[in-house]
Amino acid sequence: MTDLPTIRLRPKSKPQAIRHGFPWVFADELVTDRRTRAIAPGSFALLEDAERAPLGIVTLNNESRIIARMMDADPAAIIDRAWIAERLARALAMRARIYDQPFYRLIHAEADGLPGVIIDRFGDAAVIQPNAAWAERMVADIAAALRDVAGVSTVILNGQGRARGLEGLGERMEILSGSMDAPVQVPMNGAIYLADLMGGQKTGLFFDQRPNHAFAQRLAQGARVLDVFSHVGGFGLAALAAGAVQATCVDGSAAALELAQGGARAMGAADRLVTRQGDAFAQLEAMASEGAEFDVVICDPPAFAPSKPALEAGLRAYERVAKLAAPLVAPGGYLGLCSCSHAADLTAFRNASARGIGRGGRRMQLLHTGQAGPDHPVLPQLAESGYLKALFFRLDG
Amino acid sequence: MTDLPTIRLRPKSKPQAIRHGFPWVFADELVTDRRTRAIAPGSFALLEDAERAPLGIVTLNNESRIIARMMDADPAAIIDRAWIAERLARALAMRARIYDQPFYRLIHAEADGLPGVIIDRFGDAAVIQPNAAWAERMVADIAAALRDVAGVSTVILNGQGRARGLEGLGERMEILSGSMDAPVQVPMNGAIYLADLMGGQKTGLFFDQRPNHAFAQRLAQGARVLDVFSHVGGFGLAALAAGAVQATCVDGSAAALELAQGGARAMGAADRLVTRQGDAFAQLEAMASEGAEFDVVICDPPAFAPSKPALEAGLRAYERVAKLAAPLVAPGGYLGLCSCSHAADLTAFRNASARGIGRGGRRMQLLHTGQAGPDHPVLPQLAESGYLKALFFRLDG
Repeated sequence: MTDLPTIRLRPKSKPQAIRHGFPWVFADELVTDRRTRAIAPGSFALLEDAERAPLGIVTLNNESRIIARMMDADPAAIIDRAWIAERLARALAMRARIYDQPFYRLIHAEADGLPGVIIDRFGDAAVIQPNAAWAERMVADIAAALRDVAGVSTVILNGQGRARGLEGLGERMEILSGSMDAPVQVPMNGAIYLADLMGGQKTGLFFDQRPNHAFAQRLAQGARVLDVFSHVGGFGLAALAAGAVQATCVDGSAAALELAQGGARAMGAADRLVTRQGDAFAQLEAMASEGAEFDVVICDPPAFAPSKPALEAGLRAYERVAKLAAPLVAPGGYLGLCSCSHAADLTAFRNASARGIGRGGRRMQLLHTGQAGPDHPVLPQLAESGYLKALFFRLDG
Repeated sequence: MTDLPTIRLRPKSKPQAIRHGFPWVFADELVTDRRTRAIAPGSFALLEDAERAPLGIVTLNNESRIIARMMDADPAAIIDRAWIAERLARALAMRARIYDQPFYRLIHAEADGLPGVIIDRFGDAAVIQPNAAWAERMVADIAAALRDVAGVSTVILNGQGRARGLEGLGERMEILSGSMDAPVQVPMNGAIYLADLMGGQKTGLFFDQRPNHAFAQRLAQGARVLDVFSHVGGFGLAALAAGAVQATCVDGSAAALELAQGGARAMGAADRLVTRQGDAFAQLEAMASEGAEFDVVICDPPAFAPSKPALEAGLRAYERVAKLAAPLVAPGGYLGLCSCSHAADLTAFRNASARGIGRGGRRMQLLHTGQAGPDHPVLPQLAESGYLKALFFRLDG
């Protein structure tokens, strides 16, 4: 038997959800006596229901609203490097089946059995985001298992972002093994992206838009394409790889646009890429006053509604993007609008987008609703929160 | 000005929705005086709001709950063969951009500007479903415009199915032009399907699953694949095209399975196809008792919840399919579950599926949620009812 501390659900909590795979215990569902409160964040414990029947091994963090996360439904499980390696191997098998090249999200937290852990793989390198206390504590084991299982040599710890604050973790950024002195070339959908993995969010790379880039490529042959909030050129470079005559990338970050240009050079498509640095709203207005017109326009803004209190203002911002972008679309052309806001669900985002397009003076059909790719699996119990939404409209002629 | 009759919204109805593109007027929203009730089903009329401001040209059908459908927001529009040809040309331009070969849904009713009309294109042939009274009345004009715009020679009128009953239309099936004496070969995702276009629903072909077939193909290389409710071999033949070692197709219709075998022969893959004719539930139970195991299992049943009164029973049927299918999936294998029920929304269907998988003794990740392809566009105002849902799960090891 385990020698871990035992913690217990309150009598009114519902252990059935956990038995059926719900991965979290909230603070008000747990008996938090002095002994429980003394357990260090990131420790493991045996979780029991109110009748003392075991539910599995959890990791505890008294500083988080999610006070316990299910690690393993087997109460005899031992969470060590070998256990982590098994979870990694299972996740790797799925990615290896689906993707031709080793560039993907390898671990997507709870759904891949490693609560709070994100691992993105870039060929021979991997970036770990340990966004839960247990993972911060065991990051050396995670990195070692990752080298063993996936055969990567360079492992980077990226300890940035909002999720860590909720777990009481500070900011860190360091190379755990190997070296990284230049942006990585990332092949995706026939395009080549440059990702500066040490530069953080502004210059890294997001794999989640891959299927939506691929959908945009089906519209891009021979087209003039505008990619607003382009980051390192996500939709723009994909369009160039699919035969767009020109792609215009707009972003606020000069560093991101430089990486987009580097990617276009690596693709031999630098002569078809135009970049415009500046505030996206101002750039959209400027292009309208210039009389610019594009066959395909895609807007992939940062999360305007990252939390519930920001929802109303966020939806207004999405509507405004749609309203400013719609007039730039040629008759019968296409408009892609994306949201990575958890708080704005699909219906709310679709309504805001349709309202904005209407206020921009256009009628529309909705052709496609895209999401993150299969390297971003979810637990069905948490699927409501599927954060990434990409709507592709065709506008009137 | 038009010489059409004028009809008017009631004072309490909301003309704003129609101004913003909502395409329908329900019977209780319209002033239905004796003059309006005398208008023949399928006639055109000028719709005004309660203040007599024009909203556009509608088609009226006093026998339908959807009493009026918007044809054109321009009150001066004349709905004739040329008008129909313009709508067809616009729809064709989008399909021609997205698809390499002329096999697709060409007109998807309201969203393509031809209310109640479905047109599927199979190369040189097309099948029209005129599911609204105006289209039944003008089907010769639709067929002529279709020959002009798309260059098809064979045009079939398929007047079957539930939608026609709601419009007060009877059953018909006839060739309007050209000839059709054998099943058509339909290339899709690298597979070849045989579609008997005169045989009706049981032996025709549905284009809507194309992107979900394509997703299943990414799991199919070297795999043993089971396609339950296979119809003419939708997922099974796609899997064979993607390198499955074997595909087993289960369906109640011997005619559909014969077409699946014909498709496999045309692909040179007949030796890798197994068919089992019979009730799908009984076949699933039989395979479990045989100890059968598959790397990929896909269940694409008919609409178990076609209407709201059928919802509860329908969700139980979806749960039962999932429960019976889950034990047949190899450790770490994949399970695809589809629903084409309007009444079961995505959340309800996902919950029923996850419950069934759990009761089948398996844990799961959700990898992908698929829908109908872009040749099935929707109006954003009607997008809630997006009827086709395909959930791809990975089951535990």
